[in-house]
Amino acid sequence: MATPHEPKQDRSRATRLRLLESTIDTLAETGWAAATVAVVAERAGVSRGAAQHHFPTREDLITAALEYMFDIRMEHSKAEAAAFRSASAHTAAQDPARTEAVVAQLVESYTTALFKAALQVWTHAAADPALRERIVPLEARFGRVSHRLAVEALGVDDADPVAHHLVQATLDMARGLGLADVLTDDSARRKQIVHQWAATLHMALHAPR
Amino acid sequence: MATPHEPKQDRSRATRLRLLESTIDTLAETGWAAATVAVVAERAGVSRGAAQHHFPTREDLITAALEYMFDIRMEHSKAEAAAFRSASAHTAAQDPARTEAVVAQLVESYTTALFKAALQVWTHAAADPALRERIVPLEARFGRVSHRLAVEALGVDDADPVAHHLVQATLDMARGLGLADVLTDDSARRKQIVHQWAATLHMALHAPR
Repeated sequence: MATPHEPKQDRSRATRLRLLESTIDTLAETGWAAATVAVVAERAGVSRGAAQHHFPTREDLITAALEYMFDIRMEHSKAEAAAFRSASAHTAAQDPARTEAVVAQLVESYTTALFKAALQVWTHAAADPALRERIVPLEARFGRVSHRLAVEALGVDDADPVAHHLVQATLDMARGLGLADVLTDDSARRKQIVHQWAATLHMALHAPR
Repeated sequence: MATPHEPKQDRSRATRLRLLESTIDTLAETGWAAATVAVVAERAGVSRGAAQHHFPTREDLITAALEYMFDIRMEHSKAEAAAFRSASAHTAAQDPARTEAVVAQLVESYTTALFKAALQVWTHAAADPALRERIVPLEARFGRVSHRLAVEALGVDDADPVAHHLVQATLDMARGLGLADVLTDDSARRKQIVHQWAATLHMALHAPR
């Protein structure tokens, strides 16, 4: 049932989302120092007063943006995993092309504006214990979900320690490739690494042992 | 031959080095924003005037620290590679223990204060084109040397595309593990990843194909 308050609430929610999107773009493109409530509000086309109503302090804004980034990353990961399940309904886990597609998609998810924005926050948090305390539980949860989704997409058994650690290693390699892409366009080299690692991973996961 | 100017030059050089070491520690422990000439000088026990004589601007200090970090990283890498050459004089490249020792040492080199300091500079440079322009050639050169040293330590043939790309992937994985260690102590998980990665890498490098 609609109530007279809904349209205002919708507008308020839309403003909040615009501010959070603007925070991510600002972090990714202009870095930590620029990501203040004033700069983010201007970029979002929101008045400073309205922005401060939603986020009284910069800390509030960054914390909310982190949670929002976490939610989007989880949604992306889940959507990708679902796409793989439907695309690979007729493809056996033993198909090397499936492994390469999964690795490629995983790696690409570490080259997005979201990763670049998160890197700004992580790096700042390295020297800011209060911020670090807020991030660490989110990252731990994200790590567990990413791992579980990668295991499902690859169609392997996580109870097998070889599979478990190689999926972890693949996520670590993806993170390293994400970092390598921050200062220069590393896509040509990355493509070759993904191709070779997918072949090696596939062998290790599916070779008889 | 000693000249009357040498002691003063030595003192000047020692002061410069103390400032550069202090810059690295400041970046690694308190982050980018804190790494100003004043803070670094105080930490180094150098007067602000003397610090500004060496580094008139913050930009000068950060640029010099970057070059110094690059030099130390190269020296560490070369020393490690030399240690491997002498330790493995009687160990064939086909020994899996050698591969694991090389991977472990590579990975540990990404968990040092040097890596954490460099991460602060890279992340800031992502949104600072002038700084990025100064870093990119240094990083490209460091990447090439690290790759060559890893190839030598592993005792593989870089002309083989499988070996070439797997060594690259190993460096990317090491970088990703370094980033994973920035917010929490990741050493227990890292040890298991290194163990499995080394086993898989060894098989892929040395299995008949």
